[in-house]
Amino acid sequence: MRKQKKLGRNVAVVGAGMSKFGMFKDKDSKDLFVEAFKEMIASVDKGFDPNDIEALYLGNFSNDFFMHQSHWGPIITDLVGITPKPATRTEGACASSALAFREGVFAIASGFYDIVLVGGVEEMSKCSTTEVAEGLALATVPYEGKVGFTFPGVFGVLATAYFAKYGASHEHLMNVTIKSHNIAPLNPKAQFGVTIRDIMNKKIAAAEKKGKPVPQWTDEKDFLRDPRANPVVAWPMHLYDCCPISDGGACMLLVAEEIAKNFTDNPLHVMGIGQGSGKGLHAAEALTSFEATRNAADEAYGMAGIGPEDIQIAEVHDCFSMAEIMHIEDLGFFKPGEGYKAVEEGLTKLDGSKPINTSGGLKCKGHPVGATGIAQIYEIWTQLRNEAGPRQVPIKDLRIGGAHNLGGTGGTCTLTILERR
Amino acid sequence: MRKQKKLGRNVAVVGAGMSKFGMFKDKDSKDLFVEAFKEMIASVDKGFDPNDIEALYLGNFSNDFFMHQSHWGPIITDLVGITPKPATRTEGACASSALAFREGVFAIASGFYDIVLVGGVEEMSKCSTTEVAEGLALATVPYEGKVGFTFPGVFGVLATAYFAKYGASHEHLMNVTIKSHNIAPLNPKAQFGVTIRDIMNKKIAAAEKKGKPVPQWTDEKDFLRDPRANPVVAWPMHLYDCCPISDGGACMLLVAEEIAKNFTDNPLHVMGIGQGSGKGLHAAEALTSFEATRNAADEAYGMAGIGPEDIQIAEVHDCFSMAEIMHIEDLGFFKPGEGYKAVEEGLTKLDGSKPINTSGGLKCKGHPVGATGIAQIYEIWTQLRNEAGPRQVPIKDLRIGGAHNLGGTGGTCTLTILERR
Repeated sequence: MRKQKKLGRNVAVVGAGMSKFGMFKDKDSKDLFVEAFKEMIASVDKGFDPNDIEALYLGNFSNDFFMHQSHWGPIITDLVGITPKPATRTEGACASSALAFREGVFAIASGFYDIVLVGGVEEMSKCSTTEVAEGLALATVPYEGKVGFTFPGVFGVLATAYFAKYGASHEHLMNVTIKSHNIAPLNPKAQFGVTIRDIMNKKIAAAEKKGKPVPQWTDEKDFLRDPRANPVVAWPMHLYDCCPISDGGACMLLVAEEIAKNFTDNPLHVMGIGQGSGKGLHAAEALTSFEATRNAADEAYGMAGIGPEDIQIAEVHDCFSMAEIMHIEDLGFFKPGEGYKAVEEGLTKLDGSKPINTSGGLKCKGHPVGATGIAQIYEIWTQLRNEAGPRQVPIKDLRIGGAHNLGGTGGTCTLTILERR
Repeated sequence: MRKQKKLGRNVAVVGAGMSKFGMFKDKDSKDLFVEAFKEMIASVDKGFDPNDIEALYLGNFSNDFFMHQSHWGPIITDLVGITPKPATRTEGACASSALAFREGVFAIASGFYDIVLVGGVEEMSKCSTTEVAEGLALATVPYEGKVGFTFPGVFGVLATAYFAKYGASHEHLMNVTIKSHNIAPLNPKAQFGVTIRDIMNKKIAAAEKKGKPVPQWTDEKDFLRDPRANPVVAWPMHLYDCCPISDGGACMLLVAEEIAKNFTDNPLHVMGIGQGSGKGLHAAEALTSFEATRNAADEAYGMAGIGPEDIQIAEVHDCFSMAEIMHIEDLGFFKPGEGYKAVEEGLTKLDGSKPINTSGGLKCKGHPVGATGIAQIYEIWTQLRNEAGPRQVPIKDLRIGGAHNLGGTGGTCTLTILERR
């Protein structure tokens, strides 16, 4: 049942920026946020005075844990020069900055503010992989992390359940990986801007150069099947099924829709902001679907007055290849058990009927967890404004896009829908 | 300059609950939130179905750090039975749950929701004192904690600056301590429900019983002057100038004002919700005032259309005795440099002209940091509804009260104003 919730006042996005994502020895959270903020300022084509920003919402998962520094809200207001304006940090695990976006929308729709900065940031690569795994596992419900699960294990279990229920296999997950890697070189901000074929060819060339035995991979899937090239992390999640550890920042400028044209001739309308929560996996109806995503979709579609068929492009939270397939089903783009077939048929490619993760996804673009939610919305902003360059989807009259963000083991999910009017 | 910000839709508080605060070996965050939630349910005198709650906002500072578990939003929605409704955690250090209250107000004022649960929780006492000090110091801006400051040190510096500027001394801080301890036995939920005189008399009786030399303290101040009874923590902050380490939870039910009478005949109107951010102390104009509090006050008074003279009672963030004096000046209750005199004259006592911290304050009620903001508003709720029993202030026509919450070294401050109509 669609929830027919409405805002008393419409909100528009008039500016957006995103840092390059990656593992940066020489950049910290502050550098990365500033990089995004500067691009955001420049994107407001009619110009504006950053001093007019009235409040900040900042998504951050746990720089408490990763960087031994919490309370990032006032650090960022100081950094962008808007102290003493209010700063509120939101946290919903890997969905932290989609929550910041949503609170920014509420703050404007309430009538209290007209101009709000929303953003997200995370700095993870200064930690060891073990520390990152431990830090992320803090976001699982107590029944999961405490019995030994880290995230690859969680999605390994979900994939196993999905395979058993619908007859899919790891071969189908490879389609997601190959698709994301095919797009990534077209996104200059992606952490891994390289195709699987290029990775494969480089390894072959390196072996030839060193006079070592040359792998006889016939194509990308053959490469991904080889456990020496693509080792198991947590079965059936292999290395190339997993998103990387990343640093990055992203931000957007939200304003009351009635003043949007003062900022740009190309504002985007915030059409839907849905969110949901989930219990632990132990209490899930099924291990092949996230209840929180379904609630987020209901709220967002209800507010927007549309259905999944109206979403022309989407970013979905592909922390693991399996996740992308679950989400495109939960969001209603494809029927349960049909998602992996849609990917196989190419429907979710850049030139498919429903392009998914046109940024390269978390898998290739990177996943600085607190920045991811707004970085996903940034891709929708870029595509809807026809600014995606070589990765621009070839959809005529592209008007509506959605960004789906997931936190924890489905504890927090959001669907944000933007519209070009 | 007062900021004349208004909400498009009014919001009311129709229920409130708070756990007992203290150090509990046998209760965790979940137990404490449920304790508060049950009282909240019972307080909604016309009854309601908790399944009608549409969303949760939860303040928590850093159970990431203290309890090795983040992402508390969906844990709490599960606990109170409202999964898959949205759950958003807010963090602004020790002001985390005042931010949750404020976001709950925005979510309703936006028109999106009608019934929202807001709350806060923190569990600290399972950590060692050193761990708590380290965890709290994560909330200082990077320029403070990283050079060795923990919070007693910060407020020691601020007190030193205040003393130098205005001629106050530690004798004046004792007035705050004695006042809070005189009120605390009247609050059954307070962590330390005992007066300084009782503490003193108990120590005298114990010495007599053991045949040890009997201290010759003449009164409370004489007791507080004795470094054996009241040792220095970070000069001039002594033991009895500091709030304790605590566990606790608190929550409130917010609804759109037009439906408030369906829940109770005694709803409270949310009159003002102000917030501000601050830079580090290194960049403060003065060490005797918090810029973030002044911004929060401007926003809240502007929205409410009132001034500080209209606030009849207030809870202010007395993490240290010095803080209470700074806040009653920053909020405009007393002129800069006059706060300590007002306390000395008894104006801030339960029966004074401007009662401050009628709950016993953080000093005696306790300070489970993520729960504190809403626990402060809970005291205002209790007083405005004439439900404070023996600590009810003797003000005729008590209508307006304010709660001031501070996070970090002034990085985040709020002022929430409630009105009985």
